[in-house]
This record gives sequence, structure tokens and C-alpha cells, in this order.
Amino acid sequence: MEVEIATIGGYEEVGRQMTAVRAGDNVVIFDMGLNLSKVLIHDNVETERMHSLDLIDMGAIPDDRVMSDIEGDVQAIVPTHGHLDHIGAISKLAHRYDAPIVATPFTIELVKQQIEGEEKFGVQNDLVKMDAGGTMPIGEKCELEFVNVTHSIIDAINPVLHTPEGAVVYGLDKRMDHNPVLGDPIDMDRFREIGREGVLCYIEDCTNAGKKGKTPSESVARSQLKDVMYSLEDYDGGIVATTFSSHIARVKSLVEFAEDIGRQPVLLGRSMEKYSGTAERLDFVDFPSDLGMYGHRKSVDRTFKRIMDEGKEDYLPVVTGHQGEPRAMLTRMARGETPYELDEGDKVIFSARVIPEPTNEGQRYQAEKLLGMQGARIYDDIHVSGHLNSEGHYQMLQALNPTNVIPAHQDMKGFSPYVELASNEGYELGRDLHVTKNGNTIQLTE
Amino acid sequence: MEVEIATIGGYEEVGRQMTAVRAGDNVVIFDMGLNLSKVLIHDNVETERMHSLDLIDMGAIPDDRVMSDIEGDVQAIVPTHGHLDHIGAISKLAHRYDAPIVATPFTIELVKQQIEGEEKFGVQNDLVKMDAGGTMPIGEKCELEFVNVTHSIIDAINPVLHTPEGAVVYGLDKRMDHNPVLGDPIDMDRFREIGREGVLCYIEDCTNAGKKGKTPSESVARSQLKDVMYSLEDYDGGIVATTFSSHIARVKSLVEFAEDIGRQPVLLGRSMEKYSGTAERLDFVDFPSDLGMYGHRKSVDRTFKRIMDEGKEDYLPVVTGHQGEPRAMLTRMARGETPYELDEGDKVIFSARVIPEPTNEGQRYQAEKLLGMQGARIYDDIHVSGHLNSEGHYQMLQALNPTNVIPAHQDMKGFSPYVELASNEGYELGRDLHVTKNGNTIQLTE
Amino acid sequence: MEVEIATIGGYEEVGRQMTAVRAGDNVVIFDMGLNLSKVLIHDNVETERMHSLDLIDMGAIPDDRVMSDIEGDVQAIVPTHGHLDHIGAISKLAHRYDAPIVATPFTIELVKQQIEGEEKFGVQNDLVKMDAGGTMPIGEKCELEFVNVTHSIIDAINPVLHTPEGAVVYGLDKRMDHNPVLGDPIDMDRFREIGREGVLCYIEDCTNAGKKGKTPSESVARSQLKDVMYSLEDYDGGIVATTFSSHIARVKSLVEFAEDIGRQPVLLGRSMEKYSGTAERLDFVDFPSDLGMYGHRKSVDRTFKRIMDEGKEDYLPVVTGHQGEPRAMLTRMARGETPYELDEGDKVIFSARVIPEPTNEGQRYQAEKLLGMQGARIYDDIHVSGHLNSEGHYQMLQALNPTNVIPAHQDMKGFSPYVELASNEGYELGRDLHVTKNGNTIQLTE
Amino acid sequence: MEVEIATIGGYEEVGRQMTAVRAGDNVVIFDMGLNLSKVLIHDNVETERMHSLDLIDMGAIPDDRVMSDIEGDVQAIVPTHGHLDHIGAISKLAHRYDAPIVATPFTIELVKQQIEGEEKFGVQNDLVKMDAGGTMPIGEKCELEFVNVTHSIIDAINPVLHTPEGAVVYGLDKRMDHNPVLGDPIDMDRFREIGREGVLCYIEDCTNAGKKGKTPSESVARSQLKDVMYSLEDYDGGIVATTFSSHIARVKSLVEFAEDIGRQPVLLGRSMEKYSGTAERLDFVDFPSDLGMYGHRKSVDRTFKRIMDEGKEDYLPVVTGHQGEPRAMLTRMARGETPYELDEGDKVIFSARVIPEPTNEGQRYQAEKLLGMQGARIYDDIHVSGHLNSEGHYQMLQALNPTNVIPAHQDMKGFSPYVELASNEGYELGRDLHVTKNGNTIQLTE
Repeated sequence: MEVEIATIGGYEEVGRQMTAVRAGDNVVIFDMGLNLSKVLIHDNVETERMHSLDLIDMGAIPDDRVMSDIEGDVQAIVPTHGHLDHIGAISKLAHRYDAPIVATPFTIELVKQQIEGEEKFGVQNDLVKMDAGGTMPIGEKCELEFVNVTHSIIDAINPVLHTPEGAVVYGLDKRMDHNPVLGDPIDMDRFREIGREGVLCYIEDCTNAGKKGKTPSESVARSQLKDVMYSLEDYDGGIVATTFSSHIARVKSLVEFAEDIGRQPVLLGRSMEKYSGTAERLDFVDFPSDLGMYGHRKSVDRTFKRIMDEGKEDYLPVVTGHQGEPRAMLTRMARGETPYELDEGDKVIFSARVIPEPTNEGQRYQAEKLLGMQGARIYDDIHVSGHLNSEGHYQMLQALNPTNVIPAHQDMKGFSPYVELASNEGYELGRDLHVTKNGNTIQLTE
Repeated sequence: MEVEIATIGGYEEVGRQMTAVRAGDNVVIFDMGLNLSKVLIHDNVETERMHSLDLIDMGAIPDDRVMSDIEGDVQAIVPTHGHLDHIGAISKLAHRYDAPIVATPFTIELVKQQIEGEEKFGVQNDLVKMDAGGTMPIGEKCELEFVNVTHSIIDAINPVLHTPEGAVVYGLDKRMDHNPVLGDPIDMDRFREIGREGVLCYIEDCTNAGKKGKTPSESVARSQLKDVMYSLEDYDGGIVATTFSSHIARVKSLVEFAEDIGRQPVLLGRSMEKYSGTAERLDFVDFPSDLGMYGHRKSVDRTFKRIMDEGKEDYLPVVTGHQGEPRAMLTRMARGETPYELDEGDKVIFSARVIPEPTNEGQRYQAEKLLGMQGARIYDDIHVSGHLNSEGHYQMLQALNPTNVIPAHQDMKGFSPYVELASNEGYELGRDLHVTKNGNTIQLTE
Repeated sequence: MEVEIATIGGYEEVGRQMTAVRAGDNVVIFDMGLNLSKVLIHDNVETERMHSLDLIDMGAIPDDRVMSDIEGDVQAIVPTHGHLDHIGAISKLAHRYDAPIVATPFTIELVKQQIEGEEKFGVQNDLVKMDAGGTMPIGEKCELEFVNVTHSIIDAINPVLHTPEGAVVYGLDKRMDHNPVLGDPIDMDRFREIGREGVLCYIEDCTNAGKKGKTPSESVARSQLKDVMYSLEDYDGGIVATTFSSHIARVKSLVEFAEDIGRQPVLLGRSMEKYSGTAERLDFVDFPSDLGMYGHRKSVDRTFKRIMDEGKEDYLPVVTGHQGEPRAMLTRMARGETPYELDEGDKVIFSARVIPEPTNEGQRYQAEKLLGMQGARIYDDIHVSGHLNSEGHYQMLQALNPTNVIPAHQDMKGFSPYVELASNEGYELGRDLHVTKNGNTIQLTE
Repeated sequence: MEVEIATIGGYEEVGRQMTAVRAGDNVVIFDMGLNLSKVLIHDNVETERMHSLDLIDMGAIPDDRVMSDIEGDVQAIVPTHGHLDHIGAISKLAHRYDAPIVATPFTIELVKQQIEGEEKFGVQNDLVKMDAGGTMPIGEKCELEFVNVTHSIIDAINPVLHTPEGAVVYGLDKRMDHNPVLGDPIDMDRFREIGREGVLCYIEDCTNAGKKGKTPSESVARSQLKDVMYSLEDYDGGIVATTFSSHIARVKSLVEFAEDIGRQPVLLGRSMEKYSGTAERLDFVDFPSDLGMYGHRKSVDRTFKRIMDEGKEDYLPVVTGHQGEPRAMLTRMARGETPYELDEGDKVIFSARVIPEPTNEGQRYQAEKLLGMQGARIYDDIHVSGHLNSEGHYQMLQALNPTNVIPAHQDMKGFSPYVELASNEGYELGRDLHVTKNGNTIQLTE
């Protein structure tokens, strides 16, 4: 059976991930992501109303026109987890394919919300929930399987397309975490089993391939966060925390430690409410029943006012704005635009790392400056990455023992350390190690 | 009563710490340290046989000639903990003073060993052990007290000289750790009490004053180390670890996790044996009864041979060489000079951070290159600092509320962030915040 | 005679420079500058209409309230050169003093323009022009002298207040340039002479004190610029250049090399027109008679349209925007908001260095990204600093041999390398080397 | 005719360059270089006596065993210029091939000296001199041509193998310099002509492909050096300079400016004598007839003694040691091991940049520290690179318009910016843009 990989997006950048796998006549699409930075660099762009072609021209969403060269029927669109660089183009592209969107429940819910916010296209694809560990047939001879992985968002999986020629494992975004605070550990047993059955191709996220050793477990971030927050038990002023809104495990730790030190946590900001609310509704996390979550600016400000009235020392607002985004809640607080007043010595906990790019660094710097002008002091970098460091990559290659490897989720410079790493394991560039680019197809079997 | 501070060494560098406090006619000396980098930059210098004046000229030990201007009798020489930059000049300078050396038991033991190694001078000062929490009279009106602190070595204290004019707190080297793995947490209650009684002067270690937030607890490093070591449970090749030999809490974690993953730990290298052996003998740590510790090259190599014979997969050698020091055990292993053979894929765990200085960085880089040429792969930076970050400094100032503050343990550039920090708390340069240099005296009361 | 220095602004930052020197009953003020970054961090702040006290609270202009403690009459306000951090607060503060503003002709002209733009205060102080080399009496016993220096703006001087106690040399901002492209070399002969006469105090700009060696001459930047521009002689597409608008020597080089390679230079952007127009009107530079300079957006865009019509290959637009400022001309070009169309392979020459601060770095990065999205390619860092590196500082200390030294134009961290350097020359912190802060006074003689 | 490229060495590193081109039955080898860092990382390795296979195993010289798969006769071994990474393996490998070594006169002379120093192998290959612009037939249908280029050593060329299928241009190492101080400018006219005739393949040095803009001309370094040295005209103490010994143009500038400021230059150190002596003997440079050059330690020290006797202020020693190499002359001076005594304030001019690798950075740091301990002060980075920045690469691609492009002289990470750059010019990875590795062959035509 012919197996062919179309590397549509995310092979020259991080963002707008999209890959199609054709096995005989059947095609599965993995991810349809958005490169948000390509949108934000322009002033006043509202993607909700934009046409796909314009977004493709901007480099914001995958250029899926190569799909017309793929001879087969799309049977499923499979986003691996709920981050925007993996689902953010669904509302712009999915309606072109007569195929269901298949994902884990949390991811499906986020896809649904995204589709509802779309104003240009009517996306009518079926939304099919499948849990980690689940399988579904693709055509007569293939099968789609979800293997549980650990990442900085819950309910993440690596999809596997089992073909008569061997498995195609789509390995984007994971950390090797055996103690992930929320959810199950990465299912290495299943990966090893799939490896023994035979893997035709492994597509891998190279983000941290150049970093030595092992990405720390979420339990390490939790231990660091606990150390910080417990050290503030006696502080009787304001403490504010921020983290990635979609990082439910981290939010959960913040909520728990807030209570441990006698403060009432409250989640503030549009995406804080969205992700945590969704996670709670779907029973992924067990928050205290009285945990407040507010998204609209008005209700946020009302909450801030209440906090000021009742005493800052009794609350821990967990807010959006960890990258210093100009319109996020923390930046508004820093500018004195909310009723919450920061005083000399108040603490702001960034349970996040600055995404290392001058735009973010500049915005974050400004946010910290503004916070500092109000007297606040910063706790920084209380975080672990969601992506495999080099040792995790070695372990994956040893578990899967794939015939072909395709580095992804980076540009060529980002691929380099992975190529070196895979070469150490016996792969050879141009033979079974395929460095490729957006818009390419790689035929693996005939 | 006149109280005067002589800032003898370590006020223009890290290393060769030495400070004298005179209260009336009585003088107490805090620390007599060595700046090892000033020795190592020269080829073939053996300090054991060198005269103090030559070492002073090299900038290696404190220039204590300013002591002749101090009108009073030295009543005690008080090293705060066992690191070389605090005790390393005792064998060269202490014999000039007719005073006992007073320190905690572990520190005293290390001082003793150092004196025994000295070949030039005969140091005869009494060695007096005093535990954290202990006190001793200094003259008729003063008292010396040891307050327990947490640092990257056990049995560290901050000495306090209580005078009729208030306490002089010598605050060098600590981290604010409430969960230090080994030993008691920092005694903040006592510091707050001393603060309420009145503090005339606080001398503070500025090493990390420019770093945001809180230095993580040793329990965070332990959590990270555990995550790494448990992830290697299934690896059936060689694993080697290295850390600061004097960091007993870390060595203890290494030993425990080695056993957890089914490997027999063994401590190798001269200073590994020295520090861990001393700690065990003094009952500071409870190692497994059969834990091997070998210092002499011959017994180390014999052990390596045994490990190779019995199977690398059953052992965890914990060795010296975390900075890539040319003659340390790990560097010898990297050069293939020991019987231990590294194979492709073997792991080397650096539970240490490179001291950020080009000499170390160059040596460490070479060690890693050599290890890599043998196939080994690196786990890096599994470590936390032993020094207060800015928030710890704020908490100390708030606890002690000192009348005068003297930044120490840095050069002027290193003092700057502390000066800014202290200014935020109301101190003023030249008034009650004293930026000084080696060889100065500051009179605090008349 | 009592001589006293009030270090009013710019002793804890770069920006808002202001220093007063009192000699007996007479006072001279050096500089009244603006810290623009403190304004720009806020959205929508228009300084023109703001009150001084609000700007003081923002940290944008010097807090001159300490002047009420200075017992004497202000005889002159002396800005050293036309950069905003030296003249930008004149329109907000000068009217409080009954004294003329004394400066070189180019600086006076810029001060005048600034006062005209002021909307809140009516500044009526006399504007007195004095050339480098000129002198004027201050009271009966003192004299003000201007010594020619070389900086990144023309007509810069170091003012010297000659008192019976010796000279007070205000050494802010200069580079030691013996070949400055435009204007005379730095007048080291006069400095040496003043040194022989006796210098009571030297106030020095520490910006680059930590940099090794010598700041290169403007002739080096010119040589590098020439190399770049001549290498583009055959390019038949668009070339655009940007530099500091006030850097007339650099603009002159750009204009000359443009003509050398067969392109018509044209200066575009409000401050381009302002500074170069002023310099030409005052005969500081001899531009080609037909050199176009356009400041208003409409005339700029009309010019761009003409360039597009006649052929980009015949023009070199020299525009504002070297730091990626969001509203500058180059950023508008990058966003496609002007009629000038960049094509694949067009060149953009940054004859400037990014000011190393995350806000600028972020903005510049965005501007380069946007330029890149249009196909343009960047030539970077064709620049030399306007501030003395360490060897220049040594030469100044040796020339002046001052009794007292006051580091300025930095925060304490920035002072540190200068303190080390001055210590090497025999000065001693707290004795004759005065590290100070905003709002302090230092009494030098009684 | 079959044309095939064997990428033997220098495709996964900088160093040990070696490439073979087969055109039909004839083969030409370009470069046989040494990776010195692979030698130096080991203690006490003397390459002179080592066997090739051991050096290959160490990664020090190219693994030319792939040559046995190349069906053809080697007609010429062509080193492009005299740097060790291009000629350093000739004495270990050339004797295996029955072919002359063809190079420019200066390169040939250096090859000769290297062969004479070899102790293990007897290299008997003919040494054939050919000037830039010269040609020689290779078999019946091909021709070898040397095109003049500009690099940081004199007499550098890019060899071109003209085949019936088009030219193969071997583009290693050059800068685009139209004003190179010594020798002729790069011969872009000839490159453009070759481009018009048709280029089958271009092999390119990617060292600086990721750097923006244009590598400055040697004339820029000269201008900067002049600025520094003229500024020291009045200094009456010691001045010492160091640079790359093989960089004759720079040495010439140092010699000239020394004389301009009234100092007698003298070249000291083994490789200083070797390269400058050779250049002078071959009439590449016109040094003053009395210019002293001393290589042996004894004569160097005798010279230093003479300088001390006659007065340091009259001399400019130009010495080896710009990277802080432990045994170089400058490091010996820094350790006080020579009769030359450095005094407080003496100047050391590094007309070189530290090669950015922690080993060098560590050694250079130590050398500077030791110099500083003697009172010397540093002028740094007075240098320009010898390799093309990105704009030079664009210009070469436009001049040659090659059918195939092979990035070289880097590892894959280093190739990435070049791949991006070539992609911008329409090349496509895997089609006509060949990222390869050591030991590969690429067949271009059949």
C-alpha cells in the first residue's frame, strides 16, 4: 500500500501545524493550527472575519492547497490537543473536507468553541470524541489510535495511524512525564508495544531537541510553586499569579496552594474562564465548588472591587497576562486600569517562562516595569516546558524504532539538533531521516 | 560603647571573606577565607607551603594588616561554615591571633583537617565547638550567638555579636529554606526576635541580590533529581553523577535515589570522601552502612575496576568534577584514564551549575566534549543556589530591621542590586547603607 | 569659597540629566533633560500639556525641588548639547529660574524649537549663544567656559565652571574623537591646560566605562558605511537608510555616499527635517543645494510617490525609525503604509545600534520582521558610540587630574566599572570619589 | 559526462575540509585540512608522529576512505589557501594519491613547510604553483582555474573545475572585499563571466551565512586599528599587539602604524616569523628592511631584553597569542615569563576576535586576567571576519546562478541560515540544494 506524508504546515516554523497521511486511498489530517504571531504583528487584524486565503498569505494558517495533489479521501481531521497552533485553523479550513473532526473530549470542546466564534465560514464537520486509548477504523485496512501523552494541556494524545505497512506515529507535542499532577502519565508501554509491532514513520516535535537531559516533570514545577507560595504564607498584602490559561494542572496547583496559605483563589480573564471552566465542566479537574471564574471585563473588575473591599490579603487572583500581552488582565492591573491596587511589596508570580522572542520579551519587560512602578515585585520562571528534551527524544526513538523519521514543529535550524540526535541512533539524512518543508510530500512505500 | 567594623576581605570579590567587629575592647573575627581562583590561575602553585604575605599579594587570602589599627583583643575567630572561601585562610592567618576558633561541629572538623594539611605554619589556636542556638560571652558585656541558617553545606550558621549598642548580625551565606532535606530550616523566628531586640548592623551576602524572587528550596532540587533518576530506572548501562562534594544533602539524595532505582551508590574522589566521610562520622547524615567512599586514586580505580567487572548497570558512582576541573575524577573518566568505560548512551548527571566565569565554562565545556567523545550524554543544572535571591533579602531586612547595613561577598557591581533593594526599604547610601571595600573600617557608634 | 554640587537628575538612570554647581552665592545648572522611556511606557501621554510635577512623579524630568536648599542665585542654565536627555525638560523647568539659557548655537536653536512646542508653560528665559572656546563671567569670581568635545551630535561641549577653588568640569557626553568627520576634534589640549591649572571636581558620563579600549572615531563608522554603500553601487532596486536624526555627521556621510553611488539622497521624517534643516540653516553642514528634506507625513508620502514614479534605483531615502519606533517612517514603510514599495532583495541600512533594552529590541525586531515580510534585507550596526570607553576615561583623568570625581549618567550598576577604573587611578570611594544619587548635595570646599 | 561530488570532510564541522570532484575519469581534490581543536582537547598529542588512521579516528583529519568508491584518477590536490583547516592534513594524506599539489605560490610554500615538519610519512607529491587567474588542463576535457578571492590570508583563491557539464566552483573561504589592503580585490567580474558560461555546482562556505549584511572590508579593520594606534601616539609606556600570524595584511597595518606613531615594530613568536617571513621572501609584502622577526624562544627573549634595555616606549612587539593560547608569546608575557615587563597602564591590542567557543573564551579570559594582574589594559576586537555574511552569499548566487548548491564548512545548524537564504533565491532542499555530511557522494549528472 502506498503511504505518503504531506508536510503542510509547521515545518518551517512553530505554529500552523498541519500534516496529512495518505495510506492507499484514505487520508488522515493531523492538526490544523494557527501561527498567532503572524496575526499579531499586524495592527487591528481580526481573524474571525478573514478569509482563509488571506490568512494563508500572511503565513498565519497552513497552505493546504497541496492537498489537491493527494489522491485520496480525507477520513478524519485529528487535532492532537487544544493549543491554538494545533486547532486554530480548523474554523478556516475544516469545512473544505468532508470528514469528521476526531479528538479527545477536552480538545473537541475547545474546537467547538472556536467554530462558534468563527464569523466567516460555517464549519459543519462532525465532532467526534475519542479518548486516549481509543481506536477507530480508517477505511478497510487502517486504524486510528490515540496514545495518551503528557503536555502542558490536559487530554493530549499522539495519534497513530496503523497501516498494513506499519504505524505512522504523529508525535507532536509532549513531555515525558511520569508524574503529571493531572491526568495519566505518558503511555510508554503502548509506544513500546507499537514499536515492537513495527513503525513505518515517526513525525516528531523538535522544539527542545537541542536541550540537554530530561524535561522536568510537572511535579517539579509544582514543587517549586509550592516552595514559593508557602514562603508567602505570612505576607499580608496582595499576591497575584499568572500562568498559561490552558495549563489546567498548573492552575489547579495555584488554586490548591492558595487555599493552603489561607487565600481564596479566583480565576480572572477571558481565557482563564474559558479553559478552566471547560475543564471543570468536563470533570477533568476538581476545583473547590466556590471557585470564582470571571471572563468579562466588567465581572472581573467587579471581582477586583470586591477583593479590595474585603482585603487583598485574603485572595489570590490568578490572571491572564504571563507574556505581558498588552490587553491581558495583568497588564491592565500594571497600568492601574483595574480596581485592584498594587502596593509596595506586593507579589506577582509568573508561573510561566517568557517565550524567547524579542516581541514577547519587550512586552513582558514593559509589563514588569509597569508592575514595578506600582511597587510590585516579581517571582519568575516557575515553570517547566511541555516539550521533550534530547533524552526524551532518544527514549522515543528507542521505544518506537521507526523506519522513517520526520522532524517537525521547527524551522531547519531547530531541526539540526534533532538530526544530529537521530544520526547518533543510526538514521541518515536523505535516507530514512527526512528534513522537509511546508508543502512537500514524502512517499514512504509504494 | 564603640562598635566598629573592619571589612577586611571579600568586599571587592567573592572569596577570601574576612570581617572583624570590635565592640569596646573586644574583637571578633568572622571568616578567614581563600579565593581559590587567584591560586589556580597560576601554574603549579601549592598553597600548603606558601607564606601568608605571598598569598596576600596574590589576592588569595585576606590582607589582615588593617587589624593592627583595630584597638582591641581578638576574642574569637568565627568561621560561619565549611566552604573554602570562609575557612581557607585559617591555616595561614589564625596563628597570628591569640584566640580560639569557634564554629559548629562540622565546620570545626573541616578547619581541623585544613590545619593538619598546612605545611608552613603551625596553627595552635583552640578549636571550640558551638552548635546553632548556642551562645558564648565575649568580654564582659557582649555575647556571641549562632543562629541556624540553610546553605549548600550542612551546619551553617549566621553568627551574631550582641553588644550593648545592639546586635551585629553577620549574614553571610544562606538561602531561605524551610524544607532543606538535611538539618533544620532557617531559624527565622530567632532572627525576628533579634530584630525586635534591636540590630545595630547587618552584614549581608549580595551574591544573588539581583535575581528576582526566591531561591528555591533544596527540596526543589531533590524533586528535580528524583524526576531525572527515576526516569533512568530502566536504563541498563552506566550512570555517573557529580555534585559539590561538600553538599551533603545533595549527596544524600543521590545515594537514596540510586538505591530506589536499584543501583549501589559509591562516592569517589578525594573531597567526596573527605566531606561525606566527615559528615557521616559526626552523625550529620545517615548513609547506608555499606556505602563505599574512596579518595585515593588507587582505591578509586580499584573500585572502578570492580564496577566494570560486576556490571556498570548496578552502580551509581558519585564523583568529583562538576566544574570540569582538569584533575577531578569525572575529567579523568572523560579522558579514559580510569578503568570505568563509558559507552554510547551512558548518562552523566551534573547536579551542579557551572560557576559563571569563562575559566570554569571552558573547562566544563572540555569535560563535556570529552565525555561526548566517549558516547556519554549529559543531564545538567539539577541544582539550586545556596544564596538568597532578592525576596529573601527583603524578608531578612524586614525581620532584622537593622540600623546599618553593609553589603558584602561581591564587588561593587554585585552590590548595586542590593543597594537598590535596600534603598527601596528606606536605607540611604552613605548614611546607613555602607558600600565599602577591602581594608576599610566603619565606625558605627561612639 | 564654598563649592557644592547638587546631583539632581540622571544619577540613578540615563535620561533627565540635571546638575547644579554652587560656588559661593552663584549657581550654574548643567542640563535639564527628559527620560523619554518613562513617558513612552504609558499609552497616550502627551508631554506638551503636562505639568512639571506630574512629569517629576513619572520620573520623566528631574525633581529640582532640591534646588530650594541651595543657597545662591542661578546665573545660567547650561545644556551641553541638543539631545533630549539633556535639554528635554527645559520647557518644563527653566521658567522657574531667573537666568539665561547659555549654550552653543546649534543647541540653542534646538532649545528654542522645544520651547516653541511647549503648551503648558511660558518659558521666557534669555537664550544666549556661546561657542566652544568661549567664556562668560559668573558672578564676580567665577567664569564659565565651553570646551569643544566630540559626540554623536554636533556643537557639543563640556562646560567648565572656573572657581577660585579650582575648576568644576561637567564631562557629560563625549567620545574622544580626533577625526570626527564634521566639526573640530575634541580639545584635549585645553583639558590638559585646565588640568594643570587645577580641577576641583570632574563629573563624568559613565555610559561605556565598562567597555574595553577606545570608542572608535566617527571616521571608522564612515569607513564602514562607505564599504557597505559602495558594495551596493550595482544594485538596481530600492535602498533605504536610517540613522539618528540628530547625528548630522552620519547624515552627511549618507548623503555623500548616496551621491557617490549615483543615487539622490532625500531626508524624510519629522525629526530628520528638524535636525538636518537646523544644521544646514546654521551652516554646520554643507548639503547639496537640492537635497530634499520633508517632515510632514503628506509631503513625505508625496516624495515617496515621486520616487516610485521616477524609479527607486535613483534614490536613497534617509528616514526616521532606526529603533523600530512604531510611528516612525521606516516602520510605516515596513507596514506598507507609504507609497514606497519594498521589493524582494531591497536593502535597508541601519546606521545605528539598537539601544540595548527589551522594549527597543522588541520594536526593532518587529520592524525588521515586517521589512522582511516585504522582501527587504538588513544591514545592521553601522555605527560607533558617542560615549567614552574605559581608555578615554583614563585619558581624561590623566589630563584633568581632578581632586574630586563624581560618576554620572548611569545607575549604581553603571557606576561600578567607573569606580573600579578611578580606583586604579588612586581615587577612593567616599573620600574623593563620590557615588551619589538623585537629589543629593556634595559639599566640596568650605 | 558523469560529475560527482564526494563531501569528505568539513561538512559536519569547521576544520578538516576535504572535497573531491569527479568529472568522468578524472578527480580533483579540494583541500585537505586539519581540525586542530580535536587534537588540542587531548593532552600531549603530537600530530607530527601520528598515523593518519589515528588522526581520522580522533576526527582531526578527513576520513578519505570514501575515495576508494570514487572511480577515477586523482589529477590534482588543490588547497585553496594556507590555513590549517585547508592544508593541515596534506602531510598525512597526500602521499596516498599519485597527483601533484596545485596551489598559489604562498600556499605552496606553506604546504612545503608543513611537509618538511612531518615525521611519520614521506610526502613526495609534486608541488605546482599556479597564480590566481591561471588554468591547467585536467584530463582531456576539463580545466582547473583559480579565481582570485579575498580572505584573511593572502593569495587565496576559489578553484573552479570546468567540465563539459558546466563549472564546479569550490567557494571556500572568502570575504567580498573590494579594498583589501594587500593584494587584489575579489574577482567578481570573472565569477559573473563563469556564471554566464554555466555553473553546474557551487560549494559554499556557510560560516557567516546567518549574519546580516556585508562583512566589512579589511580597510575597515585598518581604519579602526589606525584610530586606536594613533590615539596612543603620546603614550610613553609599553604597547603590545597581537593578531593572527597568517593575516599578513593586518600585520602590515600594524607595522605601518607602529612606525607612524614613532615605534619600531618587531614580530615575535614562531608562527609570526613563519608567515610574515614567508610572505616577505615571496614578495607579497614590502616590510621595512630592518623589521625584526624572531621565532625561537631564545631570540624572542633576547629581543625582549633589548627592548627593555632600550626603552619599551620605542617598540611595538607584535606577538602570537590572540586567543590566549597557553604557550603563545603573549600568554608567556602575561605570566611574567619573558624579560618584557608590563607596567600599570601598558596597552595590549588584540587585533583579533575570540573564536566563540568556550575553550578559547576560557583561555583568552585567563590571558586577559593575567595581563590585568600585571597592570596591562586591553583593546579588543579590532578585526573583521574573513567569511561572507548573508549579502555576500546573495551576490555570489546571483553572479554564478549555479544549477546545484552544496553548503559546506559548517554543521547542519550552521547550514540552516544558508538553506533559508538559498531558498529565497529559488533553490529547493533535496532538489538542487544539497545538505550533506562527511563521507557522502552526490551525483550531479549522468
